[in-house]
Amino acid sequence: METFELNKEFIEEFVLQIDLQKEDELRPVLARLYPADIAEIFDDLNLEQAVYVTSLLDSDKKIEVLAELEPEVRVKFFKGFSKEQIALEFIQHMDSDDAVDVLSVLDTGLASEIISLLPDKPTSLYLTRLLRYPDDTAGGLMGGELIKVNINWNVKECTDEIRKQAEEVSRVYTVYVVDDSDILLGWVSLKKIILAKANTPISEIFDSNILFANVNSSGEEIANKMKKYDLIALPIVDSLKRLLGRVTIDDVVDFIKEEADKDYQMLSGISQSVELKDRVWVLSKARLPWLIIGLFGGVMSSIVIGQFKTELQDNVQLALFMPLIMAMAGNIGVQSSSIMVQGLANNTIKSDGLWGKLGKELMVALINGLVCSALLMAYGLISGNSNDIMTTVSIALLSVILLAAVVGTVVPLLLDRFKIDPALATGPFITTSNDLLGLFLYFVIGNLLL
Amino acid sequence: METFELNKEFIEEFVLQIDLQKEDELRPVLARLYPADIAEIFDDLNLEQAVYVTSLLDSDKKIEVLAELEPEVRVKFFKGFSKEQIALEFIQHMDSDDAVDVLSVLDTGLASEIISLLPDKPTSLYLTRLLRYPDDTAGGLMGGELIKVNINWNVKECTDEIRKQAEEVSRVYTVYVVDDSDILLGWVSLKKIILAKANTPISEIFDSNILFANVNSSGEEIANKMKKYDLIALPIVDSLKRLLGRVTIDDVVDFIKEEADKDYQMLSGISQSVELKDRVWVLSKARLPWLIIGLFGGVMSSIVIGQFKTELQDNVQLALFMPLIMAMAGNIGVQSSSIMVQGLANNTIKSDGLWGKLGKELMVALINGLVCSALLMAYGLISGNSNDIMTTVSIALLSVILLAAVVGTVVPLLLDRFKIDPALATGPFITTSNDLLGLFLYFVIGNLLL
Repeated sequence: METFELNKEFIEEFVLQIDLQKEDELRPVLARLYPADIAEIFDDLNLEQAVYVTSLLDSDKKIEVLAELEPEVRVKFFKGFSKEQIALEFIQHMDSDDAVDVLSVLDTGLASEIISLLPDKPTSLYLTRLLRYPDDTAGGLMGGELIKVNINWNVKECTDEIRKQAEEVSRVYTVYVVDDSDILLGWVSLKKIILAKANTPISEIFDSNILFANVNSSGEEIANKMKKYDLIALPIVDSLKRLLGRVTIDDVVDFIKEEADKDYQMLSGISQSVELKDRVWVLSKARLPWLIIGLFGGVMSSIVIGQFKTELQDNVQLALFMPLIMAMAGNIGVQSSSIMVQGLANNTIKSDGLWGKLGKELMVALINGLVCSALLMAYGLISGNSNDIMTTVSIALLSVILLAAVVGTVVPLLLDRFKIDPALATGPFITTSNDLLGLFLYFVIGNLLL
Repeated sequence: METFELNKEFIEEFVLQIDLQKEDELRPVLARLYPADIAEIFDDLNLEQAVYVTSLLDSDKKIEVLAELEPEVRVKFFKGFSKEQIALEFIQHMDSDDAVDVLSVLDTGLASEIISLLPDKPTSLYLTRLLRYPDDTAGGLMGGELIKVNINWNVKECTDEIRKQAEEVSRVYTVYVVDDSDILLGWVSLKKIILAKANTPISEIFDSNILFANVNSSGEEIANKMKKYDLIALPIVDSLKRLLGRVTIDDVVDFIKEEADKDYQMLSGISQSVELKDRVWVLSKARLPWLIIGLFGGVMSSIVIGQFKTELQDNVQLALFMPLIMAMAGNIGVQSSSIMVQGLANNTIKSDGLWGKLGKELMVALINGLVCSALLMAYGLISGNSNDIMTTVSIALLSVILLAAVVGTVVPLLLDRFKIDPALATGPFITTSNDLLGLFLYFVIGNLLL
C-alpha cells in the first residue's frame, strides 16, 4: 500500500468530512491511513474533531495513534477523556515504554491516579517504576514487552510461551533466555526456533553471547552501543543482571534524531526545540535569549573599543579591520568547540588528555593562522594600505586565532568535566566571548605596535 | 557477555601479542571480541599486523570485521590480499549491501575485476547493478538478502524456503510475499509463521498492508519513512513494483547519524567530515576553506568601511557599535538559515510557499528586532553615549536584523530549489555575507542620520 500524501487539500477535505460526521466515508480512509499519518492529521484538529475521529478507530489503532502524537497535542487530546477512559481505553493496551512516554507529559499526580486505575497490578507497578527513570536513560527508554524463556525449557515450551505472550508483544525479534532467578543468560533467534525440532532443549540452541546494558546507562551510551553493534533491541538489566526490559531501535532512532536536532539548534543559537510550523511567538521566544546575549556582547565590545578611542582616532585604519578580526575569532571558536562537542557526543575522543587535545588544536590553529596571516600580508602589499597597519593586523590575527582555538577547546571540555552539556559552549556563546577577547587583544597589540 | 573496554592499555597489550604471534593467547580474546570492536582495533594496526589477525578469524567473523572497517582503513587493508582472495574470501560471503559498501571505495576498474571473479553469476550481476546506484539513494542503501515466498505456497513450503535461505540471510525479521512475476504483494511475520499450522496457505495469513519505496528514492526519504513508521526493514521495488531488495534499519541509523554530523559540521564551518583523531594536517585542510572565505569577507568589510572613512573620523563613536551590528546580523542569519535547513531536511515545511515562510520569518525578526532595539535605546539612556548615535545605531540594528532574516530565509530555499544542498547556506557563508550587508547598511543609515 502506498501512503497517502498528506497535503493541504487532503487534510481540508478530511476535516470537512469530520465536521459533517460522514462516518461511512471516513472509515475506509482511516483504515488505509497509518497511525503515524493519523497522528499528523491530529495536529490540525480541534479537541472535538479529534475525539470524534478516535471513536471511529479500532482499539489497536487508537493506541498506536496516541503513541505517535506530539507531546503537546497529546496533553490537549486527553482533555476530551475521563481518567478512567484514559486508563482503560488507552494506557492498559499500550506497550509499557509508549505508556510511560504518554504518562510522563502529564502532571505526576494525574499520572499516578491513572496508573492506579489499571486493573492489572504488575503492570501498574512496572509503569510506576519506569516513570521514575529519567527520560534519557536506559530505564526511561525501555519497555517490558519481551519474550523470555527459561534455560531449562525445550523448543515446544518456548513456542507455547510465544503463543501466550504474542497478544501482548506486538513485535518479536529475539527471545531472551533467563535462569530461575530471571538472570539474563543469552538469547535465541526466531529463525533458530523455527528450524529446530520441538523437543530440542533451549540450552542446546541458545547463544550466550549477548550484549546488554545497565538500567542506569545514559541514552547516549545505549544509542552508541546499538549503533555500533547494529542491534534491533538491547536487553536492559539491573546490577544483578536480572532482565528488566528492552530498548528497541525505533526509540533509539528518535533519540538520535532529537539529540542531533538539539545540538544543531544549540549551535545556531536557538534555545529550545522549535519547528518551522510553530507560532511566531514561540519562534521569537526560542531565539531571543541568544540574541540578547549577542546584544550584551555587542555592548561590551563598544565599551572595550571605547577604551581605545584615542588610538582609533589617530589610526582610523584600525577600525577597518575590526570586522575581520571578529569574524575570524568567531569562526575559529565555533570550529574548535563544535568539533570538540561532536567528539564528546560520539565518544571518538581517545584518552590523550586535555593537554594532548589542546596541543593538537593549537597546531591546527597555528597552521591555519599562519596561512591566513600570510594571505592577509600579501593582500596588504597589493592593496596600498600602510605596511605598519597590515603588519599589526596580521600579527593580531595570528594571536586572536590561537586564543580563539584555546577558548573553543577548553570551554566544552570544562563544561563536560562539570557534567554540563558541552553543546552549550557552541554557537553565540563562544562567538560572543571570542569577539570580545579578540577585539581586546587586537587593540592591545595595535597599541603596542603603532 | 560484557564488551571489553578498548582502552589504550588493552590495545597496547594486544598489539604486543600480535607482534610476538602469540596465537594461543590471541584466539580466545578474538573470540570474545565483537566484529565492531576488532574493526576499531584495526585502526591502530599496520598492514602486516592486520593480515595476521585476519588469519586467526573464522570466515564469518572475518567478513563482519571487514564490513565494519572505516573506508580508508579498508582500502589500506585490501593491499594485503590478492584480487582472488578479496573476491573468494570476503566479497562472496558478504551481504550484498555490505559488499557494495566495501567495493564502492575501490577504483571502479578494480571493483569490476573482483566482481568478475565471483563464482556465482546472479550475485555478480546483482552487485554490478547495486554499484550503479548513488550511495545516498534507496538503491545504494539496499541489499538483496531477504526471504520471499510465493503467495500460492503454504506455511510448510515457507518454512522450507526459510531453511534453504537461512544460510545466506543472517537476520530474518519479515518474510515478503510476492506473486509469480516477483511483484510485492505483502508480508507475513515470523511470529505468525511460528503460530500457524503447517498446511495453512500463506494467502490466508499474509498482510497486504505493506510499506515500500522505489529504488530511486533518496536516502532522506527512506530514513524519514522508516523513522516515521518505526520500520526495521523497508522493501525496495522497481517501477513495476517488483521486489529488488530491502533497506535495514542499521544502515539507516548510520545514514541519519552521518547526515546529522555533516550538517553540524557545515554549520560550524568545517568543509568535510573529520574526526578529532584525524591528523593535524587533515583537520587543518578541512577547516581552512571556510576561514579563507571569512578572511575574504573581512577584507571586503575593510573596503566597505574604507568608503566611510571620513564619516568614521567625524563620528568615531560609530566604530564602537560595528561589532554589535555585525554580531547581531550574523546571529540572526544563522538562526533563520538553520531553522530553514532543518525544516527542509525533516520535511516539516508545510506548503505555504515562499512568501508565507518569508512573512513569518520577518514577523519573528520584527518582534526580536524591536525588543533588541528597545533594550539598546534603554542602555543608551543610562550609558552617557550621545542620543543621536544611539538612535542611529538602534534604527540600523532593526534594519540589519530584518535584512539578515530575509537573506537567511531566502538563500537556503533558493539553493534547495536549484537542487543544491541548502546546508551550504549555513555557517560562515551566511555570516560573512550578512556581516558585509549589515555593515554597509549601518554606514548608509549612519550617513543619512548623522
